[in-house]
Amino acid sequence: MKSDTDFMEMTIESEEIYSGRLLHVFKDTVRLPSGNHSIREYIKHPGASVVIPYLGNNKIIMIRQYRYPIQMVMLELPAGKIDPGESPEKTMARELAEETGYHPGSLQFICKIHPCVGYSDELLYLFWANDLRLSVTPGDDDETIETVEMSIDAAMELVFSGQVTDAKTLIGLFWLNEICRNPDLKQKFIQ
Amino acid sequence: MKSDTDFMEMTIESEEIYSGRLLHVFKDTVRLPSGNHSIREYIKHPGASVVIPYLGNNKIIMIRQYRYPIQMVMLELPAGKIDPGESPEKTMARELAEETGYHPGSLQFICKIHPCVGYSDELLYLFWANDLRLSVTPGDDDETIETVEMSIDAAMELVFSGQVTDAKTLIGLFWLNEICRNPDLKQKFIQ
Repeated sequence: MKSDTDFMEMTIESEEIYSGRLLHVFKDTVRLPSGNHSIREYIKHPGASVVIPYLGNNKIIMIRQYRYPIQMVMLELPAGKIDPGESPEKTMARELAEETGYHPGSLQFICKIHPCVGYSDELLYLFWANDLRLSVTPGDDDETIETVEMSIDAAMELVFSGQVTDAKTLIGLFWLNEICRNPDLKQKFIQ
Repeated sequence: MKSDTDFMEMTIESEEIYSGRLLHVFKDTVRLPSGNHSIREYIKHPGASVVIPYLGNNKIIMIRQYRYPIQMVMLELPAGKIDPGESPEKTMARELAEETGYHPGSLQFICKIHPCVGYSDELLYLFWANDLRLSVTPGDDDETIETVEMSIDAAMELVFSGQVTDAKTLIGLFWLNEICRNPDLKQKFIQ
């Protein structure tokens, strides 16, 4: 097995070619392990958090929202971008309240996810939320969001029939499925 | 439940703000359901294919490669961008050969994945590959890739311990896990 350094691409030059409201696009010139030069284009992203909001009684909360890049209404787990200086946990509590109105009594970290390694540095933090309490009226001017309470079985049926296609949501629901089936995980996450 | 049209964002103006070798960045002005206007920035992507290459005897092939945007060597399932006019199946057979040297005897479609709905229209097609035959010497000038044969148990151990973070790979391995556990799926995919 090669060592990680055998794969390294060294940055020769880095240029920000677009700085927008959301997207920051970079174009770097790199030296490959072969000695050849190449171009790498990618997005710099602040990171984001995503959550499995567990309501108890084998039910979770999901959301429906319009995703403009793909022109589709998507069924997703609640998620949101990390603001400057925010911890992933704080982002998650804020976004869960904005999108569903629920405040999590506790958040447990599950795993990290890189959604798009080919052209983005985005890192997602997946959490499990327990002890949900309805606390605020959801709302964000720019987003039309509908909450959906769903049984775990119904959510997994949508996964296995191909009706859930959002990557972070698929990973969250597969973890949920595992948590329900594995006694050790069940004890850790579902009290 | 709201109908899909209640969520729709209408395009008022669309502008390509960067056209690179890989990335095509757009900035659109949209009318929200509320009547307000907003900006949507996103990437147009040609789509891609990803595969679970099944070697038989509970073994699969994975690859290690450097991902410049996150500056890490990643363990992934083989994948690649769809070329103009190519079917997802053809892309997959070509990329599997380029990255591992194996030609798939058959490819079965599993599901679609949207890796990054917030800022990219990328759509991934996940396949299962059977009857792998070593046929060509892998190689692509721009990529340093190492193949890794791995047992299904070892791959799932890496998922559950958080050592696999690539989204398409996590989804592929969770499907693999399900295929091994569910007798109907096992019969369909693993002959």
